Order: sequence, then structure tokens, then C-alpha cells
Amino acid sequence: MIELKSARDLINTERLQRELAEAGLDAVVAVAPENTYYLSGAYIRTQVSIRDRLALVLWPRQGEPTFIVCNIEESLVARESWIGDVRTYVEFAQSPVNLLIEVMRERGLQGSRIGIERRFLTAEYHDELLEGFQADYRPADQLLERVRAIKMPGEVERIRDAFVRTEAAIRAAWAATRAGDSEKVIAERMSAEITERGADGIRHVTLASGENTIHAHRRPGERRLAPGDLLLTDIGGNWGGFNSDMARMGVCGEPTAESLKEYGAYREAYVDTLRFLGPGVTAAEVFNHCAREFEKRGIALRAPHIGHSLSRGGGHENPILHPFNEQRLEPGMLIALEPTFQASETRRYHLEDLVLITSDGREILTDWQSTADMIRLAT
Amino acid sequence: MIELKSARDLINTERLQRELAEAGLDAVVAVAPENTYYLSGAYIRTQVSIRDRLALVLWPRQGEPTFIVCNIEESLVARESWIGDVRTYVEFAQSPVNLLIEVMRERGLQGSRIGIERRFLTAEYHDELLEGFQADYRPADQLLERVRAIKMPGEVERIRDAFVRTEAAIRAAWAATRAGDSEKVIAERMSAEITERGADGIRHVTLASGENTIHAHRRPGERRLAPGDLLLTDIGGNWGGFNSDMARMGVCGEPTAESLKEYGAYREAYVDTLRFLGPGVTAAEVFNHCAREFEKRGIALRAPHIGHSLSRGGGHENPILHPFNEQRLEPGMLIALEPTFQASETRRYHLEDLVLITSDGREILTDWQSTADMIRLAT
Repeated sequence: MIELKSARDLINTERLQRELAEAGLDAVVAVAPENTYYLSGAYIRTQVSIRDRLALVLWPRQGEPTFIVCNIEESLVARESWIGDVRTYVEFAQSPVNLLIEVMRERGLQGSRIGIERRFLTAEYHDELLEGFQADYRPADQLLERVRAIKMPGEVERIRDAFVRTEAAIRAAWAATRAGDSEKVIAERMSAEITERGADGIRHVTLASGENTIHAHRRPGERRLAPGDLLLTDIGGNWGGFNSDMARMGVCGEPTAESLKEYGAYREAYVDTLRFLGPGVTAAEVFNHCAREFEKRGIALRAPHIGHSLSRGGGHENPILHPFNEQRLEPGMLIALEPTFQASETRRYHLEDLVLITSDGREILTDWQSTADMIRLAT
Repeated sequence: MIELKSARDLINTERLQRELAEAGLDAVVAVAPENTYYLSGAYIRTQVSIRDRLALVLWPRQGEPTFIVCNIEESLVARESWIGDVRTYVEFAQSPVNLLIEVMRERGLQGSRIGIERRFLTAEYHDELLEGFQADYRPADQLLERVRAIKMPGEVERIRDAFVRTEAAIRAAWAATRAGDSEKVIAERMSAEITERGADGIRHVTLASGENTIHAHRRPGERRLAPGDLLLTDIGGNWGGFNSDMARMGVCGEPTAESLKEYGAYREAYVDTLRFLGPGVTAAEVFNHCAREFEKRGIALRAPHIGHSLSRGGGHENPILHPFNEQRLEPGMLIALEPTFQASETRRYHLEDLVLITSDGREILTDWQSTADMIRLAT
């Protein structure tokens, strides 16, 4: 479905070059998995699971980038990355930072200004770099975040597609569900429906029924769905690294008057916040607006954030919608909006849709209208 | 199956106290997910997926430990951890390191000697800690590794159980497989069999057929199994955080004379290396022994390592069996032995079994005898 070698079209190189120029950087060293994936197009699974096995992209302001990886990933990189200059180190025999230093020396970067990820590099690797190569190092974590945050059209299309398939999978799985099914069985059914729609795998799955809905990030368990139960899912599939991250609410049989009222108030505030998203407002303003919309309806927003952006391979990314984030929304950003509402000791509500910020407002890319009612599950 | 609140019995507190005393440490701050999981008994999923959201265990030489987590994980921690003193921070409002400093101040740890994980703490958090609280900081990454490496009986039992169930799942799935099935379908079948055996989820799944076997860590794809194909899997399930990590070889129909010969030579060297494991030998000696056993049979060992330990929640852990690791094997250690053998541009072989190091040798905990022949898949 996805032509992996075309990945350069998915990089916002124009924004990257502009950011490098504005920061006066001669090069940036990307090392967090979401950044190396974004810049190289190759997803190196073990970079995530084996912490010391770094993969790095050295992106100079002038010239072509270099990709530094462990030699056992060489064939994967040849297949997936568009970067031609790939350099490999032998694990345990050479440190990846040591190879990075070699490459920077070849490139004549001594004494130049180099951006690094201080929020990813460990203290040990950081010291090895600073002691081994003389340069003017600057934090570039936020710079790389800003580049990834403004999406290329191909990225928007692929992430939207992942969400649309995920919603279809949830609805198909829940249509086949009835009272008596365990959370685990329902979760497996959703996973199977996602895989059936071409996903390479499941990124995350939260599924909780009844009083279990109050636990954040609960793994599906043995509890069986019963009439009157709420059902909450927050699930994501992975299509070539383009992930979905979507939440929907269901109810088994007839909702109680109480849950109808709670859901109605919550969803009104949710929809109002969807419509508040747009260019120029800050993440904190969106959070505060949502909190006021909750309050107007006599309910309380207690979540620490109410949404986030996302990229290929990544999880929650900035702009994260929390009350201390003054970052402004810009055209081209994607936001997964997801305020949660804990109504009682036994009931929590959660919806999550995908929104593209445009120059004159927003485009909601998922079927938010369908959430007017909770999805009905058979008794 | 697993009584989560009993987790303190799964901690080698005797070894931890001895290591703290020997290093002259007044406290150690555990922050890598495998360490906080080990010490607290609570698995905080988002600690892995959301990098800045630290969970930390402050373990003092005197007195009880403190568990520092993001407030949205509080209910999970109350359910899963045996640690009574839990302190929470509000994400984005307070830094986790800032809360750690508060707790260390309360504990009167100013100026004392404190172990930290320099190979996990990022440069940014590391600086925040050193600038915010005056103490004599020492690297404690290896100290914590050594504690986790010597298993408690309950850990051995649970990890063995995970492996045994995984082998049964592979065999059941492959018995239902025949030529024409795609790698994805076979992988799903294995995952379903693992879940059926009580797993909470799949930790990793590599499955490759035919010429795909040569790629390390390949995700299962659309390729269909054909007569004569080799089939290679390296798969792990998760039972309450006790993970399996097991590799097995199959062949669809009759193996070729070439692959029979290659597998035979590889397996002889493998079995010989299994029997070489024991207390007192170093990781490097095991690697070198295996390389010699390969060489004797006219085949080449090119893998950077040939095995590793593992713990609750973790991936590859020390002692990792690579040629530069002088760490000695000790009774109570678990080793997943897994040399791989790339025989040609189209064929790679891989077996992986679990071994307990004992005071007088070893106990192989998985059914290595059953690998005398590759598992036969129907044509």
C-alpha cells in the first residue's frame, strides 16, 4: 500500500531547512525513534526495544544526510530508507556515538553549531559526544518537533486513512459483540478487524467495560460485558508506521438515564472544542476552552491534557493540549482531540477524533457526527 | 494466575542490600522501566510509550522505598504495587525530577551518595537533578542489572512457564499451517494460540519464510509458504510481565539435502553451546566457544551476540553473550541462548531455548530435545 522508498516526499524539508537557518545550526543529529523514522523512512524496531542500539540521522544544512545504524539493521535500511549514505557500527565493538563522531569529523563539522536531542540522549551518550568531539551543541528537540508537526499532504492522507479504517474496525467488531463476551474477546475481535483492514499490527488497545472504564490505559481483562454497561475503547493500528489513535464509547443495551445525560453533556463540550480548534490559538487556550465548556454543563475536566498531535511511528506529540503549553496551532498540524470525563467512581467517557488545522479553521477528518449516540451493543 | 501484590517476594532484596552496602550508596534511584517494574511490581505502560512521563523508585539503604508516578497512574499503582509510599506529580505542572528532589530532601539525603541510571536518564533530566539537589551521584545502571540478573525462584518458575506455553503455541499453530498460508496468517495463528494460553499479549513476533529468513527482525508479510521453504520464528508472549522469547525452525514438506546438512551442523554447535553454559564462565567465553563450534563444522558465526538474560517486562538484559562482555555467569541467572546462522543469501537458522545457571552446571528449562528435527509443516 505504501511505497516505502518514496519517504522523502513525506519529509517537510522546506521547514527543516528554514528551522536550521533560523537557529544558525550547521547540522542536526536526530536520534529519537520518531525523528529517525521521520527523516529516514526506515522503522528500526529494535531501536525502540533495545535502548543502547542507537540509530541516528546526521542532517547537515549543506549536503546530504547520513544514516548511522547497527550493522544488523543494514538490509532493512537498504529496503526502507531513501538515504544513500548509510554507515554501520558493530554492536558492542563500537559505540554508535563513536561512529557519529567519525562521520562529523569527515564532514568537517569541528567547532560548528550542532543541534542534539538533549531530551533523548542519555547522560552517558551525551557525555561521550561532548567529550569526544568539539562543537557548539544546542538543544534541538523542539526544532525537530516543529518540523514534524507541520504535515505533508501524503502524511495527512495516510494518517486519515488509518483512522477511518480503525473506526470501521471498531464498529464491525462491536456489531459482532453481545452481553457475555469478555473484554479480551472483544479486544481480539477489534484487533482482528484492524489487521483485516491491512494493518501491520496493533499499536495500542485499551478496552474497558462497566466500572473498569475509570482506569486509564487499562488492558482488556476477563470481565464480561453485561446489559447496561458502558464500553470504552482507545485503540490504534499501524499501517506502515502511520498509526491511528481513536476512542469510541459503546453501551450494552439501553443506557441508563444517568449515563445518557452524562454522555450528552460530555459530547456537547467535546464537539464545541472540536470547533474551537484553528490556527493561531494556543494549546493552553484549547484546554481552557474545553474546561469552561465542561463547567458550563456542570461537569469537571480533570484530565491533564485533552489531545495531542501524532506522526509516523510516534505516540503523543506536540502540540499536546495541556494548560501550560503556549505553542500556537498552525495550518498543516494534525490534532487527535481526546478529553476524557470521569463522571463517577464507575463511569468514564472518552471520544477521540482527528482534526487537520487549516488556514481558515479546521477540517475534522473522522466521522464525529456518528458519535451523537453511543454505539449500541447487543444484549 | 499471578498475585500481583505478592511482588516483593520476586525482588532479590538481599542482593540489592548487599550491592548498596558494597558500593557505599545511601540510596538508589531506579528509573528505567525494567527496574521500576522489578522493584515496584507495577507495570506502567505509558512510562515506555511516553518518554517524559517518568516513574521512579527511590530505594534507600535504610527504610522503605518511595514510588514516584504521574497522578493518572495512581489507581493502577494502588492495584499492582506493594509499595505503600506512593507520591504523584501532575504532568506538565511539575517535573518528575522536581518531585524526586522533594522526596530526597524529606529523607535527609542531602550530600549523601546516590546511585542513578546514567544510561537511562536523559541529559536534560540528569542536569535538572544535579543542579537541583546536592549529592554524590554515582552510576548504578550495572548495580541494578546485577540485582535483576540473579532470579528469585518465583521468577524462574513464571518465566519458564511463559516459554513452555509459547512452545506449545508455536507447535499448535504450525500444525494447523500448510503451504499457501501467508506469513501474516501464520503469525496471527501463533498470536491467537499464545493468547489462548493465558497471555496478556504478544511481546514480539518475527516470522519469515523462504528467502525472507535472512532479514533480522522481519515483520510477517504477504509471502505465502511454499513446499521446501524454511520457516523461522522468534516470538514472545507476556504473562503478567513475564515474557517468553523463543525461536524455532520449521520446514514445509521435505527439507532439501542442503538445508538438512546446514541445520544439522548448526544444531550440533547449538546443543554443544547449551551444555557449555555454567557458573564461572564469562559471557565472552560462551560466545567464543560457540564460534569455535561453528568453525569446527565449517560454518561461520556472524551474529553480534548469541544470547541474553531477561526479566519481568524487559528485553535483552545482561549478561548479553557477546565477545566483549567479561561478566561471569552465576547460579540463579537465566539465559536465552540464540545464536543465529546465515547459511546463504536465502537461508538463515535460529533456535532459542531457556537455561537456568545452577551451582553445578545448568538446567535447560525448555524442550531442546524436540529441535532434533525442524518442525514439519504440511504441503
